[in-house]
Amino acid sequence: MNIVCIGSGNVATHLAIAFKAMGAEIIQVWSRDSRNAEILAALTKAKPVLNWEELDRSADLYIVAVKDDAIPAVASQLNGVKGIVVHTSGATAMTALYGAGSGYGVLYPLQTFSKTSSVNLSNVPFCIEADRPETLEKISAIAHLLSQQVDKVSSEQRKILHLAAVFACNFSNHLYHLSNQLLEQHQLKFDLLKPLIMQTAQKIQHALPSEVQTGPAVRDDQETMKKHLELLQGSPELQRIYEMLSDSIKKTHL
Amino acid sequence: MNIVCIGSGNVATHLAIAFKAMGAEIIQVWSRDSRNAEILAALTKAKPVLNWEELDRSADLYIVAVKDDAIPAVASQLNGVKGIVVHTSGATAMTALYGAGSGYGVLYPLQTFSKTSSVNLSNVPFCIEADRPETLEKISAIAHLLSQQVDKVSSEQRKILHLAAVFACNFSNHLYHLSNQLLEQHQLKFDLLKPLIMQTAQKIQHALPSEVQTGPAVRDDQETMKKHLELLQGSPELQRIYEMLSDSIKKTHL
Repeated sequence: MNIVCIGSGNVATHLAIAFKAMGAEIIQVWSRDSRNAEILAALTKAKPVLNWEELDRSADLYIVAVKDDAIPAVASQLNGVKGIVVHTSGATAMTALYGAGSGYGVLYPLQTFSKTSSVNLSNVPFCIEADRPETLEKISAIAHLLSQQVDKVSSEQRKILHLAAVFACNFSNHLYHLSNQLLEQHQLKFDLLKPLIMQTAQKIQHALPSEVQTGPAVRDDQETMKKHLELLQGSPELQRIYEMLSDSIKKTHL
Repeated sequence: MNIVCIGSGNVATHLAIAFKAMGAEIIQVWSRDSRNAEILAALTKAKPVLNWEELDRSADLYIVAVKDDAIPAVASQLNGVKGIVVHTSGATAMTALYGAGSGYGVLYPLQTFSKTSSVNLSNVPFCIEADRPETLEKISAIAHLLSQQVDKVSSEQRKILHLAAVFACNFSNHLYHLSNQLLEQHQLKFDLLKPLIMQTAQKIQHALPSEVQTGPAVRDDQETMKKHLELLQGSPELQRIYEMLSDSIKKTHL
């Protein structure tokens, strides 16, 4: 299988490397960013490409892993290419690719990718969608190269998944950051919190989050919450976040 | 070592079982709640005790794992007991135990405990504090029975740790719940998010959270954030949480 990778960000990088490891050939990496294109091309023994004129139009698969708002413009460049075109976006409808390739669809890995940390893709849910049954079958086979967990998900459902992932992943990570900031201000090491963070994620692998909620808000421990807000006196933003999330916990567990 | 466990909640249960497993004897479980006292007493082959008159005053260690606001009242009952008295609270000053036992201090496990899920305590940071050096030495030895990670932490620092843990653990878990709620409303399975949640916690074991932040807010992807707020139209509370945390991410990464 010959693949052209369009984009050179976190998702493009992880997918291209994973497909390469499964025996596919990454023939080109197209990117606006010449430096990133060169890095990813070097990692996957592909050719970096900066102009649409140089695009190889005979590949089997085109992976469009660019910023959401750039997808339609990329799609218009992929009219008439030989292979299947997929985008990897959680928040973009499949129809953004309308008319691209010999079939088009979505290959959305429900995971958080940073260039600095490796991810085992084999357990990552890949949410797929396609313009027609034959394309779906092909995309499914392609997704199964990387993961055991492949789910057909509509554009509407995918939007919700992406939104839910923002709450569960992006926002949680920011809470880790805010807690690290608090510790730093008081000469305490973030290491102290790491086992707690792991255990919090571990717990909900086998229980519903609402069943394992702990802390002052779920106990309605007014005294502790009052003390916490006092400790946050210098940080009105953290106070607001504390109050809002505590209120939300209380409402959930009323 | 003979231990009296005062309290029968999550922390009391996990600690009593762990000390028992290390060869200590839990001689009594005191609790206001007779049913919980009986359960924990049965698990640890201890005697359940409901009245202070029945308290064995000759134990080596008294673990006070009750609600924070009940600690001073319990402490006053422990004047003159033979052993050391420790509380396990993150948010309560050590001095709440003033005068209890032959020495007093704090044994605060920085972890989230639910009765339904087991915890390997050996990597859990135990934050300890004591009224004097000799007591500290004893509490340190006791903590090392359960964990390799024992840190001397002052009451002031412990308050901050506890507050940081509310952000990193209690609030994150609530975000998991909110995302599960979103999925349920759209007939999607929470299982789809579990690998993402694990990876999010995994990532910060070896990187700073701010270095691995992903999502629309850190990219300042206005279009996606607008779409997300539209999807949340029926849930003003989730909209407020979304806006507040996104704003906080944007400010952090300006």
